[in-house]
Amino acid sequence: MAVELKDLTKSDENYSQWYNELVMKAGLAENSAVRGCMVIKPYGYAIWEKMQRALDDMFKATGHQNAYFPLFIPKSFFSREASHVEGFAKECAVVTHYRLKNDPEGKGVVVDPAAKLEEELIVRPTSETIIWNTYKNWIQSYRDLPILCNQWANVVRWEMRTRLFLRTAEFLWQEGHTAHATREEAIAEAEKMIRVYQEFAEQWMAVPVVVGHKSPNERFAGAEDTLTIEALMQDGKALQSGTSHFLGQNFAKAFDVQYVNKEGKQEYVWATSWGVSTRLMGALIMAHSDNNGLVLPPKLAPIQVVMVPIYKGPEQLQQIVERFEQIASELKKRGISVKIDDRDNVRSGFKFAEYELKGVPVRLAMGPRDMENGTIELARRDTLTKETVSQQGLEDLIEQLMTEIQENIFQKALNYRNSMITKVDSWEEFQQVLEEKGGFLSAHWDGTPETEQAIKEATKATIRCIPVDAEDEEGVCVFSGKPSHRRVLFAKSY
Amino acid sequence: MAVELKDLTKSDENYSQWYNELVMKAGLAENSAVRGCMVIKPYGYAIWEKMQRALDDMFKATGHQNAYFPLFIPKSFFSREASHVEGFAKECAVVTHYRLKNDPEGKGVVVDPAAKLEEELIVRPTSETIIWNTYKNWIQSYRDLPILCNQWANVVRWEMRTRLFLRTAEFLWQEGHTAHATREEAIAEAEKMIRVYQEFAEQWMAVPVVVGHKSPNERFAGAEDTLTIEALMQDGKALQSGTSHFLGQNFAKAFDVQYVNKEGKQEYVWATSWGVSTRLMGALIMAHSDNNGLVLPPKLAPIQVVMVPIYKGPEQLQQIVERFEQIASELKKRGISVKIDDRDNVRSGFKFAEYELKGVPVRLAMGPRDMENGTIELARRDTLTKETVSQQGLEDLIEQLMTEIQENIFQKALNYRNSMITKVDSWEEFQQVLEEKGGFLSAHWDGTPETEQAIKEATKATIRCIPVDAEDEEGVCVFSGKPSHRRVLFAKSY
Repeated sequence: MAVELKDLTKSDENYSQWYNELVMKAGLAENSAVRGCMVIKPYGYAIWEKMQRALDDMFKATGHQNAYFPLFIPKSFFSREASHVEGFAKECAVVTHYRLKNDPEGKGVVVDPAAKLEEELIVRPTSETIIWNTYKNWIQSYRDLPILCNQWANVVRWEMRTRLFLRTAEFLWQEGHTAHATREEAIAEAEKMIRVYQEFAEQWMAVPVVVGHKSPNERFAGAEDTLTIEALMQDGKALQSGTSHFLGQNFAKAFDVQYVNKEGKQEYVWATSWGVSTRLMGALIMAHSDNNGLVLPPKLAPIQVVMVPIYKGPEQLQQIVERFEQIASELKKRGISVKIDDRDNVRSGFKFAEYELKGVPVRLAMGPRDMENGTIELARRDTLTKETVSQQGLEDLIEQLMTEIQENIFQKALNYRNSMITKVDSWEEFQQVLEEKGGFLSAHWDGTPETEQAIKEATKATIRCIPVDAEDEEGVCVFSGKPSHRRVLFAKSY
Repeated sequence: MAVELKDLTKSDENYSQWYNELVMKAGLAENSAVRGCMVIKPYGYAIWEKMQRALDDMFKATGHQNAYFPLFIPKSFFSREASHVEGFAKECAVVTHYRLKNDPEGKGVVVDPAAKLEEELIVRPTSETIIWNTYKNWIQSYRDLPILCNQWANVVRWEMRTRLFLRTAEFLWQEGHTAHATREEAIAEAEKMIRVYQEFAEQWMAVPVVVGHKSPNERFAGAEDTLTIEALMQDGKALQSGTSHFLGQNFAKAFDVQYVNKEGKQEYVWATSWGVSTRLMGALIMAHSDNNGLVLPPKLAPIQVVMVPIYKGPEQLQQIVERFEQIASELKKRGISVKIDDRDNVRSGFKFAEYELKGVPVRLAMGPRDMENGTIELARRDTLTKETVSQQGLEDLIEQLMTEIQENIFQKALNYRNSMITKVDSWEEFQQVLEEKGGFLSAHWDGTPETEQAIKEATKATIRCIPVDAEDEEGVCVFSGKPSHRRVLFAKSY
């Protein structure tokens, strides 16, 4: 499949189309034959695997263990937690039968009407219910607590309007589900995990995020508090990138999960849940990429350094590739992943464009003159700059560059994000900044769901979060004029 | 949850019950609220993760990449490959609706009849069809080949009689799906991957396997040849532990996947698929465990060394734990995983039994006298022996023991397996050995499906495989008396 870079839509012409084309042309994902379900292609999956590995290590370092719970949830489980069923579970894949049979009227297969399930099964949209139904049997005494489980799984939410990675019917995610003896411990867990997500987003994805609480309207169905990390995309829209919920005793009560405390008294267990998904791929792509394609932070790049020989004839090719192999071997010893592209059926200019499209952080090119001079051409994807450097000390330089590029990508995103947080103090200003500039609007809000709803209907902007580090500041709500004690962040969002 | 070791059924009294209890009591898995679906508990999942990591590394070392394809498959896809639909796809979870709604007649939710899918979706029982439908768009020219993809996923086959790990409605697996330009290359790939499985089973699981071809009756639906690894459990029954299929051009023709070869001519693509699943957990458990519980090979043990303090009072406990921590730190540097069990609410005898149940390869115990003498008690799970050794050089000893135990467990299983391959040359002998001894029967077979079927009906034994290294040997079929050119392996199986 030839890469057709020339066809990539410019991001300032049509951001949405640019994104879709980029995801497909860079070989990250594509739509499948099943409505709303995507195929994650090898290059995209390789990035997701790096994300998984880093997150999984962080989960384990904070004391969590992985487990696996069923794909299917009995329909009746959803009704057990009242607000959960209200906020969820409506747009779901429903399994009603368990057998096909040959079509008696012709070829092919039909659903066997005799194989109807007594109770329908729902393909999990999230697993609180089935997990708390299981925890009931795991928890008797305070000695069984805390339970700190995570699962890597696929989930299904029947979205009507889907976009690759950002909103798909099936997606991959992890969901942590923890059980605690006290309210304080559960709240501390929810806070710990949102900080883990923040660290991952900033240190690995190079995406700065705002940590905050969701307003009651935007809370997870069944949660008493939802913490979120909110990232800003280059089109000025926010992307909720991970959430961590303090669930109180809601699920424990719904599934009757009690424990005997140290004093011998029965108490309901306290819960959290927290998750990030393949949506992070969308955040990664939209936070850094440009009109030439992806820009990947080195820590998540499947290929960190690509080497392209510039040659005439097979003899030159062989010599250059041999030298590349020496360099590659040194780089691999330092844990740097390398690809040597010795294809002879495409031109080097085509290869350059392809690896720019794929976001490879560093590109090395070497021709016969470089071989003579002991030099090499080094190009950086993040800055799109190139220079000729000595082969001497090249490995040190590249190792150092990995850190430098990682930091530069983060800093660039941080500067942009910071420039896109605008304090607004009137409704006119709110509307004007939202339309003309976009980004986060830091504004006073009266704290009522009615005002939040009215603002959303008027402008499509929602409260992304009440930042955890929001300062106390007296003011008046931009919409209602009623008193407010701190600013919250509004934005249009994905 | 207290471990109730005393209740573990003896394996020679009731092997099946022993297995079920062991899986649950050792904290590996349990049945869920959803018929046929299991919960894989943290300790079981930790073993599965180690299996996954080792296999994944082997797949990548042989040039494969991971990708992810949809959970759902349109019903019509199954009809495209005739023998595939015949052999498969009948006992499946069928999604017919995509929405629930509040029950108009009361509380709870019901399926919304207005949200019926135009075409039903099947929860994948295996992914050949959706993947080959996708490959059609990835493959145009010989330059796009080979495609070497693997996916880690959950699949669902609506089994009526389920057993934890061995046969569950939902299970976890990996499925490799490769596309090749030539028949020879595809056959070589199928052979390469069955050897990867063999290496994994023997080197990591310490389970010896026979590599062979399935008879046509037992082939995968849609395959031209199925290679298998067959392991022997301690009750004398065989367990198919992994398969690798040469699919010919069957799926390429069903989904019209053609490529332009070097001569500019259109040709159909050649295919393989190969998979292992959480069934391997069953093989691991049944190959090595005993009446005291699991016996885990060190390479797959989540905890390789457990340390139990023998103490009176908190002061002794603290001193011993401090010394343990020094040893643990040294062991961790060598990549050995360690747990110090300093619980003060259970006796050390209880702990000993618990870690035997959980199959921890090495147990260290230390009391005040050991502290004085510079000694430590070291117990091996595989031999159930213990000895007092010097703390001096302990880390070297343990590192060496990891290798020794791994090899010992394999050797023991190999000796048993070899002792359970019996050459039989008459029908009387066949029946007698099968009933009285069990294991593999190496016997002549006339090569017809009719004879295979008749033997199965008479004895429940099936042809497990035609070993790849079966020698040419003239003989007569044990059942029909017709001529045969080599022996095949029969056994009762899981």
